[in-house]
Parts: sequence; C-alpha cells; structure tokens
Amino acid sequence: MKKNAFYAQSGGVTAVINASACGVIEACRKHKDKIGKLYAGENGILGALYEEMFDTSKEKPSEIKLLMQTPGGAFGSARYKLRGIKENRAEYERLIEVFKAHNIGYFFYNGGGDSMDTCHKVSMMGKELDYPITCVGIPKTVDNDLPITDVSPGFGSVAKYTAISTMEAALDVTSMAKTSTKVFISEVMGRHAGWIAASASLANINGVKAPHIILFPEIPFDQKTFIKKVKASVDNDGFCIIIVSEGVKNKNGSFLSEASSKDAFGHAQLGGVAQVVAQIVQTKLGYKYHYAISDYFQRSARHIASKVDLEQAYAVGVHGVNLAIQGKNAVMPIIKRVSDSPYRWKIDHTLLSKVANKEKKLPRSFISKDGYSVTKRCEKYLKPLIIGECPQKFKNGIPIHTRFNFCKVPKLTNKQFVLE
Amino acid sequence: MKKNAFYAQSGGVTAVINASACGVIEACRKHKDKIGKLYAGENGILGALYEEMFDTSKEKPSEIKLLMQTPGGAFGSARYKLRGIKENRAEYERLIEVFKAHNIGYFFYNGGGDSMDTCHKVSMMGKELDYPITCVGIPKTVDNDLPITDVSPGFGSVAKYTAISTMEAALDVTSMAKTSTKVFISEVMGRHAGWIAASASLANINGVKAPHIILFPEIPFDQKTFIKKVKASVDNDGFCIIIVSEGVKNKNGSFLSEASSKDAFGHAQLGGVAQVVAQIVQTKLGYKYHYAISDYFQRSARHIASKVDLEQAYAVGVHGVNLAIQGKNAVMPIIKRVSDSPYRWKIDHTLLSKVANKEKKLPRSFISKDGYSVTKRCEKYLKPLIIGECPQKFKNGIPIHTRFNFCKVPKLTNKQFVLE
Repeated sequence: MKKNAFYAQSGGVTAVINASACGVIEACRKHKDKIGKLYAGENGILGALYEEMFDTSKEKPSEIKLLMQTPGGAFGSARYKLRGIKENRAEYERLIEVFKAHNIGYFFYNGGGDSMDTCHKVSMMGKELDYPITCVGIPKTVDNDLPITDVSPGFGSVAKYTAISTMEAALDVTSMAKTSTKVFISEVMGRHAGWIAASASLANINGVKAPHIILFPEIPFDQKTFIKKVKASVDNDGFCIIIVSEGVKNKNGSFLSEASSKDAFGHAQLGGVAQVVAQIVQTKLGYKYHYAISDYFQRSARHIASKVDLEQAYAVGVHGVNLAIQGKNAVMPIIKRVSDSPYRWKIDHTLLSKVANKEKKLPRSFISKDGYSVTKRCEKYLKPLIIGECPQKFKNGIPIHTRFNFCKVPKLTNKQFVLE
Repeated sequence: MKKNAFYAQSGGVTAVINASACGVIEACRKHKDKIGKLYAGENGILGALYEEMFDTSKEKPSEIKLLMQTPGGAFGSARYKLRGIKENRAEYERLIEVFKAHNIGYFFYNGGGDSMDTCHKVSMMGKELDYPITCVGIPKTVDNDLPITDVSPGFGSVAKYTAISTMEAALDVTSMAKTSTKVFISEVMGRHAGWIAASASLANINGVKAPHIILFPEIPFDQKTFIKKVKASVDNDGFCIIIVSEGVKNKNGSFLSEASSKDAFGHAQLGGVAQVVAQIVQTKLGYKYHYAISDYFQRSARHIASKVDLEQAYAVGVHGVNLAIQGKNAVMPIIKRVSDSPYRWKIDHTLLSKVANKEKKLPRSFISKDGYSVTKRCEKYLKPLIIGECPQKFKNGIPIHTRFNFCKVPKLTNKQFVLE
C-alpha cells in the first residue's frame, strides 16, 4: 500500500526554508505513484506529537509556488529535541500511533544539526520499535555549521544580506565620518561559528573600505590589539566598520556579551555584544559610535535572498524526496562544490549519523593571521554563495507571501497528547 | 558673466540623497548657457569653508547616473550649523572669499530643517554682505519632519525598508512563537517624530499580523496599558511585534532610553530603547524576547528603496536648478500630493523661511485612539510612498555604486581656514 509522507520545519527558520518545503511538496506531487499525501507538521516534530498537521494536497500549485518567496517557516517551526528511544519511549510510541493512523511511511525533517539528530532518532524506530519509516533530513541553517555539505541552505541569503547591508552602512558612515559617527558596529548571528561574520567581508568586493574589523567566535577577544586596530582604521580612513559575532568570547572562554551591564532591574543583559564593543571603543578612544543589531532581519530577508541559495534550498527538498523513493534511509542531501569560478555544484547525500549534532566552525585557514579579517581562501569559498538575485512579486509596495493558515488534517487518534 | 554653482549634502544621509545630487548635476548640465561648472562641497558647508570641492564637470554621465543607485552622501555630508551673520561674520566672509574665487553664484543645499536654516542664512549674504547669491534648498530627511512638503525625499525608502523588514521578521516570529521568541521589538529612528515608526504599520498590508504595538515619540509611554496590550497580543496571536521609536518619552518628558542601564564602565548607555522595552516585557510578563536595532541600515537600504521616493528625490534636484535659473532665491522645492489613489504628485516650491528649523510631527489624527497604532487616515497617507521598486546593477552579488573619490577643484584662495 502507498504510504503518505510527513514533512516538518525545525529550529531557527531562514529566508529560504520554505523553498525546501516547496521542493519537497512539488517532488512528492510528481511521484504520486510512490507517495500518497504529504502532510506538513505544525511547529516541527510537535505537529506529529500533537497530531496537528496541514494537508498540503489541498493547496493549489500557485499557493505552493508562493513558498519560494516567503521567509519564515510556513508551517511553523520548533526548538524541540527528541531524546533517545530508551530515555523517552512514550514519545516514540506516540509518533508511531500518529504515523500509523495517517499511514505515514516517509519522514522529511528540515533543519540543522540538532534536527538531523531528531531525524536520525526517528529513523531508528524501524529497527527498535518495529515501525519501518524512511527518514530523510533536509539541511537548513543560517549558521552554515552543518558538516560535509559545502554549504547549508539559508546561509547564502544571510551572507548576501550581511554583505549588502554592511556595504550600504559603510557608504553612509563614509559620508558622515568627518563630523559625526566614526565607528559603526554591526552585530551578527553566529553563537559558535563565524560564517555570517565572515560573509560581511564581501561588502568590500566592489571597492567599499569595509569592514575594517571582524570579531569571530573562533578567535578570543584581545582588547589591546583590537583598540589599536580601531585607532589605525580611523587614522587611515576616517572611520572604522566593525562586525561582531554574537558569540565572541573573552580569553577565559566567557561570552563577551556577558560583560554587558546589568539592566535597570538588576538583570544581566542578554545579547548586546555590540553594545559592549561600543563601550570599549568609547571608553578607550572616545570616538562617536553607532551600532546595529540585525537580529531576525538578517535571517528573514527574503527580499535580498541569494539566487544560488534559493536554488540550493529548493534542490535539497526535491532531492530529499528522490532519495526516499530510492529507498535510502537516514540520509541527508548535501551540496557538493564542483568548481569555484564559474561556480558549479551538484547534489549528493550523506548519512544522518555523520551530520547529527556536529558543528562546522570557520577553519583557521579562513581567518587572517591577525584574527580580524578573512583570507583569500575564505573569500573564494564565500563569493559564489551570494550570487544572483531572486525577484519577488510585490503588492502595495511589499512582497506577497503564502498564507500561513493551511488546511488542517482531521485528527484520527482521539487522544490529547501532553509533552512530559 | 555666467556663474558657477555649489552643491552640498548636509545632515544625516539617506538611501536616495544621491538621486537628488544626480538631479542637480544633470539639470545644471542641461543649462550650460546659464550655469557654468557645478562644484560639490566635500562634507557639506565645510567643503565651502575649507575650499574642498569636487568638480562634477569632470565626471562621465555614466558615473553621474550611478549616483541614482548609491546610498550615503557621495560627496560627504556634515552635521554643522552656521550661526547668524551677526554672530559669526568671519564664516560668511570666508564663504564669500571662496565663492568669489570660484565665481560661484548659485548655492544648492541638500538637507533637512537645520540645513534649510543654513541655506536661508547664506541667502542673506546678498543683502547683508553685498554678495548676491541664488540659494535653493533641496529637501531631504528620513525623518519626514520637513513642513509644507507632502513628504521629504528619503522617507519613502526608509518607510519601505521598515514595512518590509517588519513583515519579514513577523513571519519568522510567527513560525517560531510556539517554542521560542514570543515578543520581538524593533527599534527605529525618529527622535522627535514618529513617521518611521508609523510606516511599520504597512507591514500588515498583505495580511501579516504585525505590528501589534507601535510606540511613538508623540505619545508618552504608559507601562500599564503597554503591558496589557503585549499580553493580549500574545494571548490572541501567540506573539507580539513591537515597533519602538528611539525618541519615545516617559510621562515626565525624559527619553525612555535614559532609563537604560549603566554599562560596565559606569557610563549611562546611549540609545538602546529597544533593550529597555525588552526588559520591561521580560520583568512583567516573562516572555522570551528578541530585539533588533536597524540603525544606519534603515536609512542606507538603497537595495529596497521606494521607486516613488527615488523619483521624488531626483525631481527636487532638477526642480531646484530650474528655480535658480528662474531667479527664485531662498526657496525650496516641495512635493504636492494631487491624489491618493492612484497616487499623483507634482513639484511646487516654498520659501526657506517657512521650513527652516521647523519640525512636522505625526498629527494626533494619524495615531489611533489608544496611541498604539495608526489610523486609516495615516495609512492612506503612507501607502503610496512605498510603491515601486528600483532595480540596481549588481556585480559579485552586491550592488555597484559610484566611486566616492571624485576630482578635486584646485584651491585658489591660498588660505588655510580653521573653524572657530
């Protein structure tokens, strides 16, 4: 009997995760002989546990196509990590209950390292709980920290956003530095890996003098050389553009952001490493500063998404379905770089066990000797990932997007599940 | 004898101020019978005082055209306000010295309310110091606080950026709210006027449920009703998107941002009203929050500029030159709205004396009764200003821009001027 499929989005969303959803849905529709309906879980794996699912088969092709230009997770995502089967058997039994009720035999899970771990665990249900299910992870993460794959879908777009906004702000500061702001600090995402911070280096690719300094989570912060470099930048160019990764650490291993102030209520301030850096600049050098924190803007900026990234996000979705149809289990499609210039890539796949819970940091060879910028090698890696723009349809001056309230699948298990 | 012209950029720059420069330069080139060379001051009025000017006549038409897609101020801007002739006669004498040396008879000054005051003061040199000069202000300000004109060039683009980034972040938060961030706070510019904050309301124009709350500088902050509204939003929609103007004040008239913490070095923290609001939410309601501060990104985001705004910025530049040629002095071109839908506008002009140092705040009739959103009237005003996109040329995945190192005009006054 033909099995239905379950798809869900997991972890932090991106500007192009819905392109992967589009790829999965369209590929399933092409293989109606092999796969029945595709149900999308509401809020990741929680959708399966709570039996809250959307029936994607009810949607018109045009609505599905709109996923290509919609940021965020159209079906809802979740930060929820399954424990092992031995530690929490009840959850797996519940999954099996729901999957049985809806005749689900395929599991597509779209996320990063943690989510690949969840996907891997679900794949073990076949052996350990006698519920065979074909599990395919669909890679996604703005952090670009998934191993083996050349790049994680979602990263190219945040890289493009970061490069362009850094370039634009640098032109702004260039024009005002004589009588106003001399130091501009931009805080970017990346708690453990400096890929996004590194991407800001592409701001200078058409000639802008920025960024002057990048603070990577991989390099312990050294105040003395930092201050020296800020001063040298202002002396030489009249201004200094600083990119700081949210995860920059002190030499003792604590987050630099933890050095931040207590707030008016006595709480330690979360985040805000940009502010800490700004205060160091202010105290030691007295320059007028400004800082920006892009936060969710950087990972949801579909309006300036990278074409390469969008295409790759779509491709891993399609290929994930193809892998499932070929009977591959506990695998994840990956991007393989064939050449740098012109940039060519193809899709391959790897085992989930090889990517689950692993973090790919920025290699030391990608960071300059002094620790404050990137090497040619890094630039060569990053350059092709931000190429190309992806036009969107606008209405009323802003991009249109898919509706977020798809048709629900009627519940069949007659049980109110409660998380432990 | 045919006179040369001086053009300069003043105050905070915008995504489209260079489009006004392009308009001025191209219009001057069309009227070579009336206007000689156009010199652009380096860093606003300082360029005249220091005799640091660029000779725009040396540039190819294609380089000038690139100004249309370059954010920031291509010639450098400055925050510098001339005092009156009586208070600082030496400065005016220096201006006359430079202008005489370079045969300058036209003065185009591109800026906001303060800059229009400077332009107005320069125009008085004719009467008071017997150096007749034709002065035309070219309006510009992201704050949209210039009076009389329907809109200030620069605002439409920051409004479009704000609406789109709010919409995108709202989709992100919508998808994650179940297990992650429930309250997202976006700090926008606007120290005295809430126009930019109001523009975030356009995020919901295609159906996104955001923003839930806008905090305007015009409405004193009331913690009790604010907290109530945040809770209601989370209860109803699962999340709450808050836009906060940097200039929001407490009931006692102090900036809310001043309630912010002392930093690690004991300094009062500048800016950071988003953080204050976040801490209030955290303390009173305990929701997980995130905040973004767009800072310069919002006013330099040429990549998502409004077409209407770009066209208007160009038009006021062209029209400013036309006014000068017609012999009008101490005037500023303005935008007049002819109709809302379809949006039609034309150029008119007003006296500098009527706009100098005046601030147009958001009218109370544009803010909802409860003070937390905008009225239909406001929406009707804002809607047309963000319509249309302006394609840019990209190279290496990021937009190309004009070079910022134009040809300098040789100095003729043989004097090192020093600011008092």
